[in-house]
Amino acid sequence: MKFFRFGAYEQEKPGVALTNGELLDVSAFGEDYNEKFFATDGLNRLADWLTTNSESAPRVEKGFRFGSCIARPSKIVCIGMNYAKHAYESGATELPKEPIVFFKSTSALVGPNDQVIIPRNSVKTDWEVELAVIIGKKTSYVEEADALNYVAGYAVHNDYSEREFQLERGGQWVKGKSNDTFAPIGPYFVPSSEVANANDLNLWLSLNGKKIQDSTTSDMIFHVPFLVSYLSQFMTLLPGDVISTGTPAGVGLGMKPPFYLKPGDVVELGIEGLGEQRQEAIAWKSL
Amino acid sequence: MKFFRFGAYEQEKPGVALTNGELLDVSAFGEDYNEKFFATDGLNRLADWLTTNSESAPRVEKGFRFGSCIARPSKIVCIGMNYAKHAYESGATELPKEPIVFFKSTSALVGPNDQVIIPRNSVKTDWEVELAVIIGKKTSYVEEADALNYVAGYAVHNDYSEREFQLERGGQWVKGKSNDTFAPIGPYFVPSSEVANANDLNLWLSLNGKKIQDSTTSDMIFHVPFLVSYLSQFMTLLPGDVISTGTPAGVGLGMKPPFYLKPGDVVELGIEGLGEQRQEAIAWKSL
Repeated sequence: MKFFRFGAYEQEKPGVALTNGELLDVSAFGEDYNEKFFATDGLNRLADWLTTNSESAPRVEKGFRFGSCIARPSKIVCIGMNYAKHAYESGATELPKEPIVFFKSTSALVGPNDQVIIPRNSVKTDWEVELAVIIGKKTSYVEEADALNYVAGYAVHNDYSEREFQLERGGQWVKGKSNDTFAPIGPYFVPSSEVANANDLNLWLSLNGKKIQDSTTSDMIFHVPFLVSYLSQFMTLLPGDVISTGTPAGVGLGMKPPFYLKPGDVVELGIEGLGEQRQEAIAWKSL
Repeated sequence: MKFFRFGAYEQEKPGVALTNGELLDVSAFGEDYNEKFFATDGLNRLADWLTTNSESAPRVEKGFRFGSCIARPSKIVCIGMNYAKHAYESGATELPKEPIVFFKSTSALVGPNDQVIIPRNSVKTDWEVELAVIIGKKTSYVEEADALNYVAGYAVHNDYSEREFQLERGGQWVKGKSNDTFAPIGPYFVPSSEVANANDLNLWLSLNGKKIQDSTTSDMIFHVPFLVSYLSQFMTLLPGDVISTGTPAGVGLGMKPPFYLKPGDVVELGIEGLGEQRQEAIAWKSL
């Protein structure tokens, strides 16, 4: 069983994808996939509800829009330079001794197949396929051995990054990570119980049909249990929070010479078992 | 009229402080001071409601706890090194050419007089009195001349900072800004209509009774309208969001030699017209 959200932007309804491929509209359950849902054991409550309601739940009609697979979280925490080859392609001369941590504005959250808007005055909009971890229970100071008990599941995230805003505008990366549409997450939220080993998943990204990122989460420098434990020393993690675990080599910044998104470019990406995304790049326009 | 929240942590109720000093419990209005409240013109709706309900609203009993004056926002955006003397005391060799931007986890939000917890393994917990701007309407790409129309009001914020976590643990400041209790905001949310000029307010902080920060917001390098406009180029600002505008000189990091909070220390701070805070420092303890 996988979880998704569908419908118009900011009016998404909850859905469940059954193992047989059927897509159920579970609006009648009466909840969204948000902090409260995760905090109150929503995954198990929804599974229980489905044992008596799955037959009567409406099927989702074809042609729907996927929203972000989770509602807006309290925070999107990102890890920088967490794959060795990507660290070097980004100009690092040595690997990080401990995780590099930055935030992304949650207003950047969109669906997995929405268009990505190249911001006004942007010339360096870049892509980053990443494994996103969704927190299931509130935690701080959790031990690494216990950390996975606080993870609800996983999803695909494209951590879009404007490199000039991030790196050439006076320090601190959040400035280049937070524009609208810069955080497509989904299509599916996949619970931990259905992911055999999050530290061994293939992930890839292609630009206009050519694969340019291609790696496995086993190449991470800092793995999921360590990251959850580490972050929880510096901040309380809340149910529904997102930890995006860094991207492998193959971003535009690392190309020789570097190149970035132009309107009309198509970005496709995916992670083994978690689904695929597709974004067309468009230019920012005044409303 | 000023706005506050009172009661137990995460169970706060809304209150209104009248000009005559009376403190009203406005729970019967049925809303919290959150994103939806600001997005739907809550300040004016509540003022209207008070014209017929202020006499019957219960008065808040003495001895109450002040909560954060606003509910948890979608983000707390902070500006670094926005006062010249503070930039130099922090080791900068030149002033920032454009604002330095970082985030703080919203889980750090607490009331203005709550104890500040020195995190586990912290030896460099530091203080920063700051003017916090509360956004009133959703905006992106707003012009500087129009920016104040998107500001709902102001509050006092102590931007607590763990300097080792922030500066010596591998880049990106968010790591030293996000521990629990590191964002006391309040006591009052003061609407823009009651602040004659946010760019000319005295602000101060004392440690154990000795004043060590003492400045005015007129000393900011980048002022409020510019900051709102600037940030809105990089992210959509949502109603209820907090922009913390940087701290003047006098933090522990800037002392010669530097010194930091110890359990039992008392931090008091205030901003002209916005009220005062008082925090006692305590050591982190396992629950």
